[in-house]
Amino acid sequence: MSEGTVIIETIASEVLRGNPLGDPFVRRVPIYLPPGYHESDARYPVVFVLTGFTGRGTMLLNDAAWEETLPQRMDRLIAEKIVRPMILVMPDCFTRIGGSQYINSSAVGRYEDHVTQELVNYVDQNYRTIADRDHRAVVGKSSGGYGSLILAMRHPETFGIMASHSGDTYFELCYKSDFAGALRGLKKYGGLDKFWDGIPTIRPRDKDFSATLNTIAMAACYSPNPDAPHGFDLPFDGETGELRDDVWSRWLEWDPVMLIDKHIDALRSLRLIYLDAGLRDEFNLQYGARIFVQRLKARGIPFVHEEFDDGHFNIQYRYDNSLKAISDAIFKFQV
Amino acid sequence: MSEGTVIIETIASEVLRGNPLGDPFVRRVPIYLPPGYHESDARYPVVFVLTGFTGRGTMLLNDAAWEETLPQRMDRLIAEKIVRPMILVMPDCFTRIGGSQYINSSAVGRYEDHVTQELVNYVDQNYRTIADRDHRAVVGKSSGGYGSLILAMRHPETFGIMASHSGDTYFELCYKSDFAGALRGLKKYGGLDKFWDGIPTIRPRDKDFSATLNTIAMAACYSPNPDAPHGFDLPFDGETGELRDDVWSRWLEWDPVMLIDKHIDALRSLRLIYLDAGLRDEFNLQYGARIFVQRLKARGIPFVHEEFDDGHFNIQYRYDNSLKAISDAIFKFQV
Amino acid sequence: MSEGTVIIETIASEVLRGNPLGDPFVRRVPIYLPPGYHESDARYPVVFVLTGFTGRGTMLLNDAAWEETLPQRMDRLIAEKIVRPMILVMPDCFTRIGGSQYINSSAVGRYEDHVTQELVNYVDQNYRTIADRDHRAVVGKSSGGYGSLILAMRHPETFGIMASHSGDTYFELCYKSDFAGALRGLKKYGGLDKFWDGIPTIRPRDKDFSATLNTIAMAACYSPNPDAPHGFDLPFDGETGELRDDVWSRWLEWDPVMLIDKHIDALRSLRLIYLDAGLRDEFNLQYGARIFVQRLKARGIPFVHEEFDDGHFNIQYRYDNSLKAISDAIFKFQV
Amino acid sequence: MSEGTVIIETIASEVLRGNPLGDPFVRRVPIYLPPGYHESDARYPVVFVLTGFTGRGTMLLNDAAWEETLPQRMDRLIAEKIVRPMILVMPDCFTRIGGSQYINSSAVGRYEDHVTQELVNYVDQNYRTIADRDHRAVVGKSSGGYGSLILAMRHPETFGIMASHSGDTYFELCYKSDFAGALRGLKKYGGLDKFWDGIPTIRPRDKDFSATLNTIAMAACYSPNPDAPHGFDLPFDGETGELRDDVWSRWLEWDPVMLIDKHIDALRSLRLIYLDAGLRDEFNLQYGARIFVQRLKARGIPFVHEEFDDGHFNIQYRYDNSLKAISDAIFKFQV
Repeated sequence: MSEGTVIIETIASEVLRGNPLGDPFVRRVPIYLPPGYHESDARYPVVFVLTGFTGRGTMLLNDAAWEETLPQRMDRLIAEKIVRPMILVMPDCFTRIGGSQYINSSAVGRYEDHVTQELVNYVDQNYRTIADRDHRAVVGKSSGGYGSLILAMRHPETFGIMASHSGDTYFELCYKSDFAGALRGLKKYGGLDKFWDGIPTIRPRDKDFSATLNTIAMAACYSPNPDAPHGFDLPFDGETGELRDDVWSRWLEWDPVMLIDKHIDALRSLRLIYLDAGLRDEFNLQYGARIFVQRLKARGIPFVHEEFDDGHFNIQYRYDNSLKAISDAIFKFQV
Repeated sequence: MSEGTVIIETIASEVLRGNPLGDPFVRRVPIYLPPGYHESDARYPVVFVLTGFTGRGTMLLNDAAWEETLPQRMDRLIAEKIVRPMILVMPDCFTRIGGSQYINSSAVGRYEDHVTQELVNYVDQNYRTIADRDHRAVVGKSSGGYGSLILAMRHPETFGIMASHSGDTYFELCYKSDFAGALRGLKKYGGLDKFWDGIPTIRPRDKDFSATLNTIAMAACYSPNPDAPHGFDLPFDGETGELRDDVWSRWLEWDPVMLIDKHIDALRSLRLIYLDAGLRDEFNLQYGARIFVQRLKARGIPFVHEEFDDGHFNIQYRYDNSLKAISDAIFKFQV
Repeated sequence: MSEGTVIIETIASEVLRGNPLGDPFVRRVPIYLPPGYHESDARYPVVFVLTGFTGRGTMLLNDAAWEETLPQRMDRLIAEKIVRPMILVMPDCFTRIGGSQYINSSAVGRYEDHVTQELVNYVDQNYRTIADRDHRAVVGKSSGGYGSLILAMRHPETFGIMASHSGDTYFELCYKSDFAGALRGLKKYGGLDKFWDGIPTIRPRDKDFSATLNTIAMAACYSPNPDAPHGFDLPFDGETGELRDDVWSRWLEWDPVMLIDKHIDALRSLRLIYLDAGLRDEFNLQYGARIFVQRLKARGIPFVHEEFDDGHFNIQYRYDNSLKAISDAIFKFQV
Repeated sequence: MSEGTVIIETIASEVLRGNPLGDPFVRRVPIYLPPGYHESDARYPVVFVLTGFTGRGTMLLNDAAWEETLPQRMDRLIAEKIVRPMILVMPDCFTRIGGSQYINSSAVGRYEDHVTQELVNYVDQNYRTIADRDHRAVVGKSSGGYGSLILAMRHPETFGIMASHSGDTYFELCYKSDFAGALRGLKKYGGLDKFWDGIPTIRPRDKDFSATLNTIAMAACYSPNPDAPHGFDLPFDGETGELRDDVWSRWLEWDPVMLIDKHIDALRSLRLIYLDAGLRDEFNLQYGARIFVQRLKARGIPFVHEEFDDGHFNIQYRYDNSLKAISDAIFKFQV
């Protein structure tokens, strides 16, 4: 089997320089070049692959039992002629609070700009890409699925093809279930300041830790507030647990299911809208996907929707389906 | 130690006759008479004790390891002079879907009327009670705590003293966390009709069963709709999980924390408002209690608020605190 | 439907007087008399019904949602002619550490003698029983199932019919899985002395509490040692967790699957050997039952063996099957 | 901070050629060379680092949130002068059933020979090592900790320094607790053959999957039998769950706590015996470590024993302690 090439680029981001969390502005970004890239002067479509919360692109190269890395998966799919040769780009939008949701936030940084402006340009300038939206896809899992949804809706001029595996959507069901755990965690770890400082070192990392981290990070992304401690508002009162409706409504402005009409033209323009989720998803994301596609259907927008009998974790095998769908969507006009 | 007397009355309810769920209208209601009742002609205050979801008054007589029955507890508290002699009434508002929340619902029955009209009158007519609101208390645990809150707010002329152990309140945190399990349950058990019929017999009764039962029953209580299947609306779409805002807002009209201003005069008139909850409450009810008393405080209404290091279940020992508080509230004007 | 009568006898036990745990020697023992008992002078078979760990006979009268009490169940089974009229006896062998396994132990008390001598005689002397082993059955659930197995094997002259629901057997799988939790619990609660004193009051009663209590109690029953603290040996080193082989081998002398050859004549003489267990039993008791009946089969001893799709708890509905099997076994020689 | 070099060697193993599971005999083995290696002609001690079950050496290079890779960790420890420069070798003893326990088994392959003969020689021949047992250490976590214990005991001429993080030992507590889950799993997945074939693809991988896989793999390592299906004996009857004492006793011949007297001279000769485990270890491995060091102590053999407040997973930070202990043990004779 022919093997593609992986180049790990070290990219100094201008938009991340001086980011509010003090995270590095120099990032390592793996680029997968398909077999044959170096032997030809052909141009290739590009797929941006976004990792989930607490992930970054280099993790897609991690070795795991009984699993392929993303490049190994791509090599196989190409060898089996399931997928056409494409370039894969694996951004690093990790932060000290676990992630960025691939959006701009005054509390976290300009990760949306980093991906849609800097990385897209960098790749187009340094690799033989087909540099238009009909040959540029975005796909991801979990928070990366969210990133795919939100970037494709907000940047249809950049991404013409989109796929989301178990992406965060319908915040009502996927985030609120963490709030009770976050309330317990904030108490257990001694308040927001202590938790904040302890993120890299708190042990053990139990369920309350995860709920707290997730809630903090989503708040930093969705409800930033330069005047608040750590630069964001929590969506609830830390003592009574009472939902702050005004903060929650700011979160909802970032909920994909709420954004369909706002971005209806973008959605209509996409050459692929692919969503899936597991029937046992621990964050109930199958429901968000159903709501999303139900609303697309009501508006006459085509989509691919799949469900599978598994949970939220260890489902990288689902990339077989999305990469094929992306390849099909890109190449059907090219035969 | 002197022992009180327990009489199990068999009471035919007029308001429950022909109830929509086909539950019995004849109910067995234990009445606890304190030591000395039969040897005197004194009149006594009355405490209505409301059980939690899936409970009924006779269960307060159940034998359990290392535990007192409610009458045994009362005997001890009286013998130790912690509590003054009082009559206890233990209503049966159980239904085939687990309970009634002690309110009237076209889908469930007139349990509010049953307690506040029928039982109160029956007890006053048949026992030597002090038949006024300042000598009539209502207390309960979980759904019974909810019942205490709601009945005291809605019937201050009947109940002048109220205590809630881990009562359902702030529905946002206590009920919504069941919705994902209810969605799974409705699918697993073959839809609402099959689940409905199977309630008494489905095995095993796992977490999804409990979440489904609880959600169904709350919907029947809070969002009845004579035109809907089984007479009520679910608060979400059974397929997509999407919250039905209009149904949810009908639930919120029954949420104690939302009802404070509506019943502000009633609350001000109460001689005791007692709330507690465990710090590990599995339904997050400590937060609802905090919100409730925070709002009372903001309005200058006095209350007793306690928290304890335990969960939601097996906390009957908390009745020691509420019964003392009730006794103190009733008798402080009587020395 | 005709209803039987329940008499709660108060029985002063001679053999429990001065028992080592300081538990009461006066016990309340419910006796169920079938419909017609008072209107005839017929004599009836007797079934001793043994409750599980932390249970006692009066709990069989407890009210529970969607459930019958044992007398209600018996009334129905008799009315439907599934079961013939029989007397039921519900012993109280509860202790301050949760139970006695219905055996004699120098650390716990003489509960085997209490049941097989005192209660059997008391009932025969005070009720119109058919006072022979072919008309006297023993049945129970969990530790009560264990009690049924062990008493029938050791006292075939007393009990000719036996049924065990999810009874403790094959200690290797059913008890050892608690040892790690007991090790944690003994550390968490401050050692054996503090745990011992705290049994009635420790909160919350979590999984480690249950594992610790269960292990302590089984040790007191199976490996008593008058010279050891609290009168028994633990089966492991409390610090290193190392199994004490000598103590464990004393436990195994009480394991039903190990006792078959020792009591082979007794087993052969029984008119009914009934065992069942759930396929999801939390204590893995389905395996013990399988081993037990496999060994019976290898020795040509007949038995009834059932399995069902449920766990260890809330399975009182299984009494329908055992009571029918008992009735059939007793009455098939009497038509 | 100076960075070491990682070379991923591709090594064709003679002893693994034709292994019974059909696993590859060509393995990728990362070698870490400390900063300065290429600029000098110094010779260095060597540390073999063994991964846990389902792991292989390349996974020690995996990127993870808030974590260092093993080379990054080593770079830091060297830069901070906590650890002296040493070469690290990261073997791949993964198999299609998850691992090999680093021993020879007719059912799995000759992984003990692969490490102690082939890899040791390869490294000594291809790198500037100090090629004696006093400068060669073995360390690992979980099954890798087991590998360290067993290889150091069996090959003291090869390894003079040993460290085990949460290593498998005292099989009674660490493996038996999986047997009930393995029994359920074998039933659920349709028997051993179907499970065997499905290992790489079964979804979801729940607790029963893990218990089954772990039990199967340990049986293949500890109780191989060329005449049995798949080449090994299970330690229990798959239907009744009854322990096969003869098979279990073969497992115990591989239990480190049982092997101390057999390998007493080897243990006495080691320049470092380091064991640790978390106080919340999900496999109860803190007890095995305590038993192991208790027995060493009774025999006057020195050791380092640490416990920490964490579980079994995500504890790679513990390598800071073992690498320092290894470095100290090697270099204290060299100043």
